[in-house]
Amino acid sequence: MADSLPVITVLCPDDDGPYAVPPGLDELEDRAEIRRTTAAELSEALSGADVLFLWDFFSRAVSDAWHAADALDWIHVAAAGVDKLLFDELAESEVTVTNAQGTFDRPIAEYVLGAVLARAKDMPGSLRRQQTRTWEHRETQRVQGLTALVIGTGAIGREIATLLRAVDVEVFAAGRTARDQDPDFGTVIASDHLPAHIGAADVVVNAAPLTPQTTGLLDAQALAAVKDGAHLINIGRGETVDEVALVEALDHGPLGFATLDVFEQEPLPQGSPLWEREDVLITAHMSGDVIGWRDALAEQFLDNARRWLAGETLHNIVDKQKGYVPRPQP
Amino acid sequence: MADSLPVITVLCPDDDGPYAVPPGLDELEDRAEIRRTTAAELSEALSGADVLFLWDFFSRAVSDAWHAADALDWIHVAAAGVDKLLFDELAESEVTVTNAQGTFDRPIAEYVLGAVLARAKDMPGSLRRQQTRTWEHRETQRVQGLTALVIGTGAIGREIATLLRAVDVEVFAAGRTARDQDPDFGTVIASDHLPAHIGAADVVVNAAPLTPQTTGLLDAQALAAVKDGAHLINIGRGETVDEVALVEALDHGPLGFATLDVFEQEPLPQGSPLWEREDVLITAHMSGDVIGWRDALAEQFLDNARRWLAGETLHNIVDKQKGYVPRPQP
Repeated sequence: MADSLPVITVLCPDDDGPYAVPPGLDELEDRAEIRRTTAAELSEALSGADVLFLWDFFSRAVSDAWHAADALDWIHVAAAGVDKLLFDELAESEVTVTNAQGTFDRPIAEYVLGAVLARAKDMPGSLRRQQTRTWEHRETQRVQGLTALVIGTGAIGREIATLLRAVDVEVFAAGRTARDQDPDFGTVIASDHLPAHIGAADVVVNAAPLTPQTTGLLDAQALAAVKDGAHLINIGRGETVDEVALVEALDHGPLGFATLDVFEQEPLPQGSPLWEREDVLITAHMSGDVIGWRDALAEQFLDNARRWLAGETLHNIVDKQKGYVPRPQP
Repeated sequence: MADSLPVITVLCPDDDGPYAVPPGLDELEDRAEIRRTTAAELSEALSGADVLFLWDFFSRAVSDAWHAADALDWIHVAAAGVDKLLFDELAESEVTVTNAQGTFDRPIAEYVLGAVLARAKDMPGSLRRQQTRTWEHRETQRVQGLTALVIGTGAIGREIATLLRAVDVEVFAAGRTARDQDPDFGTVIASDHLPAHIGAADVVVNAAPLTPQTTGLLDAQALAAVKDGAHLINIGRGETVDEVALVEALDHGPLGFATLDVFEQEPLPQGSPLWEREDVLITAHMSGDVIGWRDALAEQFLDNARRWLAGETLHNIVDKQKGYVPRPQP
């Protein structure tokens, strides 16, 4: 009987913290063989596996072990971005890929709103003055009536727009195709034409998935075209922003401030010029990771696993050509 | 003809920055005699004056010069709180007092929302780690679903409630009298019973005017009763919070964090133990002072001055017994 059970391989990180393995998978054990593995043993664990669950969600190990994937039907990634996973052979295969869309939307939107307010009220400047016991009154910025451009029209970008609008920030977006009357964004400009439109925004938020189209999208040309004093917030992927151009735009261009949760290289290297800048706020790729996030990610996989075992349609199926979960057409 | 013009005395601060005198008062000069003065000459300038405009809005000089107020009809204070101005003889007199209600509501509400988010996302912790080039992922707090208690049911408290609710924070309030079904707050508890209710709130915001009832309202008993890890935000007056009890509640009690814009003594003394705490964020009494605030304050006085010159009812009349502008009864 055990021989006929489907095989679910779970790629876990090497460290053995409390969440080294996903919680709650025990419930599947009478319906599937669960193989918990790490990158070094992935090939062996992938042989004969029907399902691969990337609990180690930034792993790039799947490509190397791909030759062993002889029975694979479905890969679930416990992350919103699938850029670390996708490679040509996977994209061209019949294997279904799903992701963690939904889990991070509200937490990331809260982080973005917090960043907008923190910069407007100069909270970093207050904290630095506090460290030297300096009492210095300053005038700060009203957020009501500012304009924000959200790059990326997926679920995270939409939640960001919703929260910014809730405090009377005007919002428009950039996406693959220009359109008007989007229910969440109103106007969507084409990302191809970013430099022509980016100057209208006091706040520019990158919430785009990393794809060939968005790699280096915020380059020297785009960053030179921002509004004077603009605030760039990146919660998408580091590779969407050219960090050399970013420093240049802060030093000699119009950019006023940057809040960065993601970087070209993570952890951000010790030698990065970003660390010591007072016009940059750095967080450690954690914008969506609120208390309970790992439990939510495990539960999201379990929900899809129950569907897969029952032969039902999975949630959050990634378009492997586009590199993200497409929005249902109305 | 000049002898018959009413006299408007403007008390200006001693420093001579660009806003040492209020902008725009020239427009009144064919209808009133404008006397710009400072505290040292206030008695002289008050003699024969019909109107006193406290552009130096935290001045306590009026009490000392009161003997010279032989014709005074109206005092306008360019501040939301009138606690620095009010004294018994003024309160018992026929002189009308108006304030700057309205100007600060939204900016202060934005500051409060920013403080809630900054603490929830541990932005102070990120900034400190940035200074030592430390990359350390942490889990942060979801703001959606938190509960906030707003102390003070005036216009500022109401705007705070509106913005917090816009991001799905549950809100209730504390005021003079308990009531249900307040349009902005829902439940209002009596401030007298604060210790019995304060434990329900993740965030406690003091937005109350300073009156005998609110002086020391957040004392050792109230601060010992807050929810474990609670965040206290004070944008009202420093004297409402017992700072010794505050430090005690942070060190040995349940309080988790405090964002303080106002203090028992301002500027906050160099020796205050608050400066060096990592669980306190200090700002220099500036929560409502967005770019353009001084122009808005001057315009607000001009609007009321036009009304006074035309014999019309003034806006923002303070109840001198209560110490604030009462809300119109529905």
